[in-house]
Amino acid sequence: MKVDSSLSGKSLLRALAGERLATPPIWFMRQAGRYLPEYRELRRQAPNFMDFCYAPALATEAVMQPLRRFPLDAAILFSDILVVPHALGRDVRFIEGEGPRLDPLIGQASWALGDPAKAVERLAPVYEAVERIKAGLPEGVALIGFAGSPWTVATYMLQGRGGDKDDCRAAAWAQPAQVDALLAVLVETTARHLQAQAKAGAEVLQIFESWAEGLAEPQFEQLVLRPTAALIVRLRALGVTQPVIGFPRGAGHHLARYAAETGVDALGVDTSVPVARVRPALPARMPLQGNLDPQLLVVGGDALRAGVASVLADFGDAPHIFNLGHGITPEASPEHVTAMIAAVRGAAT
Amino acid sequence: MKVDSSLSGKSLLRALAGERLATPPIWFMRQAGRYLPEYRELRRQAPNFMDFCYAPALATEAVMQPLRRFPLDAAILFSDILVVPHALGRDVRFIEGEGPRLDPLIGQASWALGDPAKAVERLAPVYEAVERIKAGLPEGVALIGFAGSPWTVATYMLQGRGGDKDDCRAAAWAQPAQVDALLAVLVETTARHLQAQAKAGAEVLQIFESWAEGLAEPQFEQLVLRPTAALIVRLRALGVTQPVIGFPRGAGHHLARYAAETGVDALGVDTSVPVARVRPALPARMPLQGNLDPQLLVVGGDALRAGVASVLADFGDAPHIFNLGHGITPEASPEHVTAMIAAVRGAAT
Repeated sequence: MKVDSSLSGKSLLRALAGERLATPPIWFMRQAGRYLPEYRELRRQAPNFMDFCYAPALATEAVMQPLRRFPLDAAILFSDILVVPHALGRDVRFIEGEGPRLDPLIGQASWALGDPAKAVERLAPVYEAVERIKAGLPEGVALIGFAGSPWTVATYMLQGRGGDKDDCRAAAWAQPAQVDALLAVLVETTARHLQAQAKAGAEVLQIFESWAEGLAEPQFEQLVLRPTAALIVRLRALGVTQPVIGFPRGAGHHLARYAAETGVDALGVDTSVPVARVRPALPARMPLQGNLDPQLLVVGGDALRAGVASVLADFGDAPHIFNLGHGITPEASPEHVTAMIAAVRGAAT
Repeated sequence: MKVDSSLSGKSLLRALAGERLATPPIWFMRQAGRYLPEYRELRRQAPNFMDFCYAPALATEAVMQPLRRFPLDAAILFSDILVVPHALGRDVRFIEGEGPRLDPLIGQASWALGDPAKAVERLAPVYEAVERIKAGLPEGVALIGFAGSPWTVATYMLQGRGGDKDDCRAAAWAQPAQVDALLAVLVETTARHLQAQAKAGAEVLQIFESWAEGLAEPQFEQLVLRPTAALIVRLRALGVTQPVIGFPRGAGHHLARYAAETGVDALGVDTSVPVARVRPALPARMPLQGNLDPQLLVVGGDALRAGVASVLADFGDAPHIFNLGHGITPEASPEHVTAMIAAVRGAAT
């Protein structure tokens, strides 16, 4: 079923409203990032990553860089999921080549956190960046705001870093009420954080559940399904009407429950999801976003073109937002991004 | 449907033959390992891990240690999946606290490897360990041999270490024929390695596909489905009749294809698999093995007992081999293992 694509409006919003466009809207995770030489140059103005995130002019420039190179259909706020714990009073450091470090809550006697309302006040520079970006966006380009999911953010707070989530799962098995209380603070703070982004001009909101993987079903319910559903209920209660894309990376066999039970409007799927096989288990005509292997932007050439064709065929005739299955890597080539976009647009049916 | 469990024979073999036993047979991945103080003591006799794997007396003692503590239904050979590349002429080092290191094939001009027949000659100490273990096994305990899957072993050979598999996926996209040739050598070597274990006394064979995760469907077909199917065809051609358990950790939505298309007799499932939901898509009454979260052996107590009950309920009335969803960790407590086994046996229906 095809819909007339001459209708007015931003293509991302139309796809999220359920239209199957002849050419899917295109954006990609980490499109403002280290694979771009101009981004690496810009970062030198604020070597401390959190300073960079809190500098509206720099964050705005980072967002604009890929839009100058590529005919993309959406921009996404430049920020980090860890601004939320930072605003709640946790120390957040980024160590070059190693990733973020926080003081782990596991092992601390009290997990007392700051007040969600005050946390959002501290994030004013983020919302200023949203306003600046919105004001400078090319016509037809939609602006996406985002946050980490409560569980994903909690894992960094609990164990103080990325890596395997063994200690976090153990904490959730051993102290479920304490983990629930932490998630509740994150639900409230994240809802207000997304609300403020929407007020500042974000037209779409994406929730990154980067650590959906490896959870037994009872923990997936406790840590992912219930907090995400609570977050979306709270968002709607706060008057936020923007569509929400949930991206539960690695959700595996829990994907259909995530799609059906959290209240997300659209679903991001990682590279491992065979969409045609999985779609019958998902809500009818839910817009899906994804899922080219980012390594194809390192490799390029025939493999990239075949990969794009495979993704387009797999997503078939339902509403599709073309994206990667994970963030683009620093080793990717900007020329391959150009080729990817040409391949998607060239395949228009 | 229950089967009379008074029938003779080893319970693991009966479950693999399709019986649903009142109490499922129990063993667990890494049951001989660092969570046991006596294992840590034994390892001091051969601090180099590969030396330890190639010392039949030490490997045999490691296998016997958990059997003295716990009423388990199976033992598994003590060895490592990387003995295969080592026997093929690759250097394999284990760095304390960091894991294995090989000289990565990626970036090398030639990927020439040794002869599979000669590789298996070099692994004679492994088969001697199998013979010794078999001779010393308590009555009713079945002996499992194992190998890594071709793709999992190839990832260590390609990038020289564990961690994310980005470079391996890129290599497979960019040089599919070269990767296929590497996998073909591993299929042949692994088939002969498993054949030799079976001849030496292994009654069951398990294939560890530890890196099934994150693959787009075309790569899952190339890297997991086809090589695993080729391995099992080759095993049967070599006259091996023992049942094969495939454990594709993180296979996610590709799990049903793995179960149906590789020729495995039974399926190991990781902690993230909700068995009752997934089973309708699997071959009817295929024996399933798993899948308690190993972190529950760190936590213990009520959470452990509830977790065991949840796993037993989830596996329901079809043939089940009780196991973890991943290997036991060094932080786990032997007392919690005792409690886990008691909970499984106490729940017999």
